[in-house]
Amino acid sequence: MQPKGCQYGTHRVIKPKGVLPQPAESISNDMALFDNEIRIDVQTLNIDSASFTQIKQQANGDVEQIKAIMMAIVKEQGKHKNPVTGSGGMLIGTVEAIGDALIGKTPLKVGDKIATLVSLSLTPLVIESITNVRMDTDQVDIKGKAILFESGLYAKLPKDIPEKLALSVLDVAGAPAQTAKLVKPGDTVLVIGGGGKSGMLCLYEAKKCAGESGCVICLQNDDAMRETVMANHLADHYIVADATDAVGVLKAIDAVTDGKFCDLTINCVNVQNTEMASILATKDEGTVYFFSMATNFTKAALGAEGVGKDINMIIGNGYTKGHAALTLEMMRESEALRKIYEKLYA
Amino acid sequence: MQPKGCQYGTHRVIKPKGVLPQPAESISNDMALFDNEIRIDVQTLNIDSASFTQIKQQANGDVEQIKAIMMAIVKEQGKHKNPVTGSGGMLIGTVEAIGDALIGKTPLKVGDKIATLVSLSLTPLVIESITNVRMDTDQVDIKGKAILFESGLYAKLPKDIPEKLALSVLDVAGAPAQTAKLVKPGDTVLVIGGGGKSGMLCLYEAKKCAGESGCVICLQNDDAMRETVMANHLADHYIVADATDAVGVLKAIDAVTDGKFCDLTINCVNVQNTEMASILATKDEGTVYFFSMATNFTKAALGAEGVGKDINMIIGNGYTKGHAALTLEMMRESEALRKIYEKLYA
Ligand SMILES: NC(=O)c1ccc[n+]([C@@H]2O[C@H](COP(=O)([O-])OP(=O)(O)OC[C@H]3O[C@@H](n4cnc5c(N)ncnc54)[C@H](OP(=O)(O)O)[C@@H]3O)[C@@H](O)[C@H]2O)c1
Ligand SMILES: NC(=O)c1ccc[n+]([C@@H]2O[C@H](COP(=O)([O-])OP(=O)(O)OC[C@H]3O[C@@H](n4cnc5c(N)ncnc54)[C@H](OP(=O)(O)O)[C@@H]3O)[C@@H](O)[C@H]2O)c1
Repeated sequence: MQPKGCQYGTHRVIKPKGVLPQPAESISNDMALFDNEIRIDVQTLNIDSASFTQIKQQANGDVEQIKAIMMAIVKEQGKHKNPVTGSGGMLIGTVEAIGDALIGKTPLKVGDKIATLVSLSLTPLVIESITNVRMDTDQVDIKGKAILFESGLYAKLPKDIPEKLALSVLDVAGAPAQTAKLVKPGDTVLVIGGGGKSGMLCLYEAKKCAGESGCVICLQNDDAMRETVMANHLADHYIVADATDAVGVLKAIDAVTDGKFCDLTINCVNVQNTEMASILATKDEGTVYFFSMATNFTKAALGAEGVGKDINMIIGNGYTKGHAALTLEMMRESEALRKIYEKLYA
Repeated sequence: MQPKGCQYGTHRVIKPKGVLPQPAESISNDMALFDNEIRIDVQTLNIDSASFTQIKQQANGDVEQIKAIMMAIVKEQGKHKNPVTGSGGMLIGTVEAIGDALIGKTPLKVGDKIATLVSLSLTPLVIESITNVRMDTDQVDIKGKAILFESGLYAKLPKDIPEKLALSVLDVAGAPAQTAKLVKPGDTVLVIGGGGKSGMLCLYEAKKCAGESGCVICLQNDDAMRETVMANHLADHYIVADATDAVGVLKAIDAVTDGKFCDLTINCVNVQNTEMASILATKDEGTVYFFSMATNFTKAALGAEGVGKDINMIIGNGYTKGHAALTLEMMRESEALRKIYEKLYA
């Protein structure tokens, strides 16, 4: 009989007691299964970009040093949470064993190839050896095993989409999936940072959901992505403005929407101090969806109050049901989009 | 002819150019009106609690020193934004003049007594003299004037509610107003920090909106407020748990809701690291409303993804339409609530 586990994996927390696996300092990476766990034969770790950059620096770019640092992290913690950046990454591998309590409950079968969509910073992991470090894509091939908790998210890797492309779009899958939930026909939608990796997926989905009567606006701080965005019909308008300049964005959006402003603003930038531009671009009773991790809670809350805007502001949950399937489907549906992402991110 | 102003007051920004009045280092406090402004004869400043505490410390509790520090801030900036805490406060006063472009547009009349609901950190202010410093309530009586921008929020002070009580509940008016928007009949609603100033207003409103078939739960970290909350029927359950202990809260909510968890969780605490408890207490496809300013965006976004929770997470905008009127009305509607707030906060 396998022991019974908690759906969130708290049964594996060693120190400090009582916290969840993510904030924990160390967790058990014993590869004997609890009844609600899945064991994965790991093929590749996709280290979070901030984390990998830090490790490369600490190792002075030396591959053997990188391997040593990574092995030490996992030995210490039972998981791969970078002690400096606090971040993890994701992994690809093959289902090796399924806990008794999940049989018949999970759609997964032994032998399925999956990508985990929960952070390596909470995933029990054993690395036997590191076989290859791909310096430019943050990917590390290993021999090793990992555990997926009952609540852990994953996506089956499709056969018709290259693994690297799948990994790269799955990283930001929450954004287009939330876009699909939020955009209604006829909406005016602004995507700030719409020329980036998550941004173009949001543009595409917004165009689809807003329909003929809608209007989709891409905002970037230079012209570099104009050709790609406009030639592929990802947006109706491409605006150049600095998202940290609230008044500049206000004026640009005022002009392009004829003073009506936006029903929905999606913030996909990777820089700080863009809360106010997002708020001012949005019409009263509209919605701002903050996908950017550089968002500051207080600046958003007090910013909206300061200008008397009755808007709905949403924290970008990285997960929403069906997000992986929807995002992979976009790569099948639009050859244009697929080509862009293959070229830029795979 | 009065000059034309921007609705957000950018026309008064002196330094740096191009930002909004709140982040600006200095703004013009010239009391000649732009066409879309309202001039207020100020009676009392209600300094933000964090700001006033800092000023008192810097002044070693000396009243004349406090006055000097406050005068210097306004002289330097043209507004009262504490340079250490960055925060402001609100004010009460009487409408003295209304800009030409607002006549017929604003419901305000000269002579109306109002409280401003936008921060002093963006309000053009002149202090002629400080007549009284009320050390224990953060209130400072002055002779002086202030400007309300077109987008600036305010509430008319009612004649039937004591000014101090009105001021204290208006400070947190966004919370019960959002509660009214979010709670549906039959909902299970958790208020974390439900025994605090914003918390009890949320409990009261949630009970009203959830109705007989609903269930309202108050969570506090000790028993101090149990009697007040339960004897006044503000909640159906009073739970003692530490909101920073996610697993402890999970277990407590599991037990009281019979494993069903909450449709809506309202976070009204004043401490950090309570995102995870809020997420775990909420059922799939439920909503967390973060009113607490101690909320960390990244902890909420990554926390929900880490446990695979498809929930809607809302940033507590301090403003929603009608929030002041609704909150003042609660003080008329419920004698019980009014007595509690008169005793504790007025
Ligand atoms: N919530 C979640 O679960 C989750 C998951 C993954 C990622 N994220 C976050 O999502 C954000 C975007 O990720 P991504 O992969 O899409 O990044 P990305 O590809 O770097 O996209 C960012 C875009 O913003 C543009 N930009 C930067 N500064 C700007 C400015 N001042 N004005 C206008 N545009 C500006 C960039 O343009 P240039 O390239 O010209 O600079 C780029 O097109 C990041 O903050 C990331 O942390 C969140
Ligand atoms: N979004 C906005 O516009 C806006 C406007 C105003 C205020 N706020 C924010 O709203 C929050 C609450 O304000 P408030 O005036 O209602 O504050 P408050 O009266 O101090 O209420 C906080 C409540 O949380 C309880 N609490 C503290 N630590 C706890 C823990 N570990 N576990 C369980 N309960 C705990 C407190 O109990 P004890 O008293 O026993 O410690 C108290 O009942 C603050 O963070 C404030 O910044 C936001």
